[in-house]
Amino acid sequence: MELNKENDRLYKLRHSLAHVLAQAILEVRPNSQLAFGPPIDTGCYYDFMFDSPLSPEDFSDIEKRMRRIIKEKQVFVASKRPLAEAIEHLRKLNQHFKVEYCEELGRGGEKEIGFYVNGPFEDMCAGPHLDSTGEIPPDCFKIDSIAGAYWRGSEKNPQLTRIYCLAFENKDELAQYIENRRLAQERDHRKLGKELELFMISDQVGSGLPLWLPNGTVVKEALEDLAKETEARYGYVRVSTPHIAKEDLYYTSGHLPYYKDSMFPPMHLEGESNYYLKAMNCPHHHMIYSHRPRSYRELPLRLAEYGMVYRYEPSGTLSGLLRVRSIDQNDAHIYCTLDQLKSELRETFNMALQYYKMFRFHGVQIRFSTHDVNNKSKFVDNPELWGFSEAAVKQVLDELQVEYYVGEGEAAFYGPKIDLQAKTLLGREESVGTTQLDFAQPLSFDLEYVGEDGIKHRPYIVHRAPLGAHERFVAFLIEHFGGAFPTWMAPIQVRIIPVNDTVLEYAREIVQELQRELVRVELDTSDNSFNKKIREAVTHKIPNIAIIGGKEAESRNVTLRRYCVKEQISLSRDNFIDRIKRLISERVMDNFPDITI
Amino acid sequence: MELNKENDRLYKLRHSLAHVLAQAILEVRPNSQLAFGPPIDTGCYYDFMFDSPLSPEDFSDIEKRMRRIIKEKQVFVASKRPLAEAIEHLRKLNQHFKVEYCEELGRGGEKEIGFYVNGPFEDMCAGPHLDSTGEIPPDCFKIDSIAGAYWRGSEKNPQLTRIYCLAFENKDELAQYIENRRLAQERDHRKLGKELELFMISDQVGSGLPLWLPNGTVVKEALEDLAKETEARYGYVRVSTPHIAKEDLYYTSGHLPYYKDSMFPPMHLEGESNYYLKAMNCPHHHMIYSHRPRSYRELPLRLAEYGMVYRYEPSGTLSGLLRVRSIDQNDAHIYCTLDQLKSELRETFNMALQYYKMFRFHGVQIRFSTHDVNNKSKFVDNPELWGFSEAAVKQVLDELQVEYYVGEGEAAFYGPKIDLQAKTLLGREESVGTTQLDFAQPLSFDLEYVGEDGIKHRPYIVHRAPLGAHERFVAFLIEHFGGAFPTWMAPIQVRIIPVNDTVLEYAREIVQELQRELVRVELDTSDNSFNKKIREAVTHKIPNIAIIGGKEAESRNVTLRRYCVKEQISLSRDNFIDRIKRLISERVMDNFPDITI
Repeated sequence: MELNKENDRLYKLRHSLAHVLAQAILEVRPNSQLAFGPPIDTGCYYDFMFDSPLSPEDFSDIEKRMRRIIKEKQVFVASKRPLAEAIEHLRKLNQHFKVEYCEELGRGGEKEIGFYVNGPFEDMCAGPHLDSTGEIPPDCFKIDSIAGAYWRGSEKNPQLTRIYCLAFENKDELAQYIENRRLAQERDHRKLGKELELFMISDQVGSGLPLWLPNGTVVKEALEDLAKETEARYGYVRVSTPHIAKEDLYYTSGHLPYYKDSMFPPMHLEGESNYYLKAMNCPHHHMIYSHRPRSYRELPLRLAEYGMVYRYEPSGTLSGLLRVRSIDQNDAHIYCTLDQLKSELRETFNMALQYYKMFRFHGVQIRFSTHDVNNKSKFVDNPELWGFSEAAVKQVLDELQVEYYVGEGEAAFYGPKIDLQAKTLLGREESVGTTQLDFAQPLSFDLEYVGEDGIKHRPYIVHRAPLGAHERFVAFLIEHFGGAFPTWMAPIQVRIIPVNDTVLEYAREIVQELQRELVRVELDTSDNSFNKKIREAVTHKIPNIAIIGGKEAESRNVTLRRYCVKEQISLSRDNFIDRIKRLISERVMDNFPDITI
Repeated sequence: MELNKENDRLYKLRHSLAHVLAQAILEVRPNSQLAFGPPIDTGCYYDFMFDSPLSPEDFSDIEKRMRRIIKEKQVFVASKRPLAEAIEHLRKLNQHFKVEYCEELGRGGEKEIGFYVNGPFEDMCAGPHLDSTGEIPPDCFKIDSIAGAYWRGSEKNPQLTRIYCLAFENKDELAQYIENRRLAQERDHRKLGKELELFMISDQVGSGLPLWLPNGTVVKEALEDLAKETEARYGYVRVSTPHIAKEDLYYTSGHLPYYKDSMFPPMHLEGESNYYLKAMNCPHHHMIYSHRPRSYRELPLRLAEYGMVYRYEPSGTLSGLLRVRSIDQNDAHIYCTLDQLKSELRETFNMALQYYKMFRFHGVQIRFSTHDVNNKSKFVDNPELWGFSEAAVKQVLDELQVEYYVGEGEAAFYGPKIDLQAKTLLGREESVGTTQLDFAQPLSFDLEYVGEDGIKHRPYIVHRAPLGAHERFVAFLIEHFGGAFPTWMAPIQVRIIPVNDTVLEYAREIVQELQRELVRVELDTSDNSFNKKIREAVTHKIPNIAIIGGKEAESRNVTLRRYCVKEQISLSRDNFIDRIKRLISERVMDNFPDITI
């Protein structure tokens, strides 16, 4: 979500609410020093120095006072004072932080200082504000939390207390935000990743280098198998390349020296070239393309690889699976002729949308990233090819009749990009997939094909990764599904719960039959009560719980309980097994309760 | 094949044959200087300095003379001369190289020099020899080739001509060797790897770092899928770990500093630990084992990963896929209790034998590698655990009633090993799979589980890789199959050859139906003649050639020609498609012509 702009109503609302918050707090802590109180993208905060501490128990009293202030429809009145008078005025108000800030502004050349008054409250402030506190809906806000902060953000300065207040256009949007945040916290992939044992980060291995635990490996490999199959149907072939290469390869590609800071440092081999961990797969794929002469008959050549690349991200930015140093890319490079370029772009695009539809990603946005004509250092200097390539991408987007926005200056250095962005539950935009057109690397790697005319031509390259990085995509899916994966992706696909020991033989028969079909099945032979067994299966978010009691054993049936679906159904043993097999082979999204199966 | 020993009959035969070769050559080049003429493991050679060059055209004449010498049943007579007399004698014989060598032996303290005489030929020689040239079967040898060599192997010395002669026990063994060598050359995985476009080595990427081309990636992934499925059936779970780790991890494991020379050099990260490329997967797996407390109920825990490890091999030793720096291991680590150890060893062993039987590897040998009590620096110093572990492995091998030999001092530093060795076509023994018992790393990583008794215990670890490294195993398979892979592994599984254009529609229908089933199928729409199309498909070693002519189109049939099987069969379209699907899903080894399908 973008930070609201100064002239937005919501910005004014949040800014005005900060003053209301401060006024209410001064009522209960009259001797407080005011620091800053800006609007932020979830509401506003205000920093105070209190003479006695405030606690969350005080929030509801303060909120009541805020609502009273709103009801009073206090008018916001702006004024300006000459610098010296402003400082004098703030001294009288006993606001030392504001005095200090005012003096600083003076040293910066400021001659006049703005003030806003509403009711009994006055604050040094540049605005803008609503006309009156009465314009703030009394149910659009909620005091959220207390945190520590330093005056001007520096540890050397006095410590302050920051009061956060959520604020949105109206009650519903506030409720929606709170609910989304609750869900997001509950579904945070780091939290679920730990609870469901999907992945771990090890201090001994290193930050940003996730280790996939058995359950997470199932999810990752299910995704990989999906990609392999989809790519095979789209006419891709697969390759597999090492994770290191000599440094010269990256000088040829242009990644060295420009991208050096994002790569792991080199390995110095005695008497040999330096070697680098690969930060991208393209140079390796170009080696495969050019290992022998190519004919137009072979194009488009679509080389796919789930290639692990390594990027040096500063350790402070690393977070769960979303920001990592080892990146398992759903990578491919398409080498094609000029004539094939548009249809290849179209197909990569269709593949991406097919995936997002399948996973029910809503709110996928398309960003068309172009170069910046004024920034010659960031982009290959070839106006003709930029013109052609950007026009080609635009034409494809227009033909597909999809909505998109332009990200000027966001292109790769070698050509324009189409980024597919999805929103997390909290509304944060994340790039999930990308398609990039490349006219520069064919030149630097001297890639060629012999055309129908017998003459050598340069191919175009499309770089594409509709599922982006495994790590990021799985993080997304964990939060999207809340950890409840569809049967085909689920670490445990079926748990069989026998009601008592007399049915164990029948239960084991079913387990064996499912195992023969490579279904991931577990038999709960614990001493737990029946209800606890069910609860455990639900806690582990197992999509299919098969209950077997005396009745089922006798009639050779199974009672099936789907995850989070209340209604249980009775199936014959064979129908049950067929159903599980079909859920897997057809990749049914049975974790959405509305899916009828 | 081991070098024959001095007292072997074959050693004497080869040694005697070297003298026969030299005698025959002296007949056609009487003024030659003799250098050395030892037996080797394929026969013998003799080095000469000629006054006029010899060429392969002379071989049959020389062989005839050799057979005459054999027929003459010349008796080998040994004698000894005091050093000075020997030198004088060799001077008289005009053999300057022998004089030089004799003088050197004298400086080394030798007092007497041995000589052997047979017929008119005399050579300074320590023996042993057969009693007479008549004991050499006249058809057991063949002059093989001419090569250059230096006197005493040094470039500073005069250049000599080396004549190689193949020699075996009898005619049949000679013929077998020659045929095997022809096959080996024809099937050399580097040659086939290039012809069938399976893999490439790129100077720009680096030596010993194969890039798998699309065809090779199919083979590699087919193998990986087989392993995944087999391991799933044996109760393994999969994990996935990064290719790098902090150096401390390898100090904990003990690989640093002892194994440092075999690892790639470290990456120095500013303000962080050094990172190493992993040379083995075990430390990463131990991190997964120990990321939370483990109970005996979870054991045996079998963690499998197709993990790429990197080992620094000197560049001179690198060769194709057999000696590489990037090694894709079919790795797994089994964490188990003492009670489970033997059954786990047994099962890993059974899995390995299941694979080798499936691929029809004959002559698999089992080496039981034990520690060397006198070499405390190479092996963990824990006599009790060595005693127990070696006894456990021995007991399992004995119970399985398999033959094995002991490799004393060949164990890993952490425990005994079972290596499975296979023979290449040329008889070279190569290690294909390994099972290792580890009692040391559980100590160094402080691995534990809570037993049924509520007390903490150490698990045992079994390291195992029945398919060894992808690279080596695929190299093996390429040579074993001569590049003709079974349908389930073949890069192209079916090629459809339409006899003329009128049947194209029907042919395309079949292509589409096969593609829907993800069969790798190609339609030959080239302008080549029918015969050339067939030849091309055979050259590419495509296992199934489907011929479609007017008759087939009319009757909705297909004429199927299997690779290297003469008999063609007619199948209905549906039967054909079902057959192909079955060959794939059941992993039929249809590249062996004796397989009835």
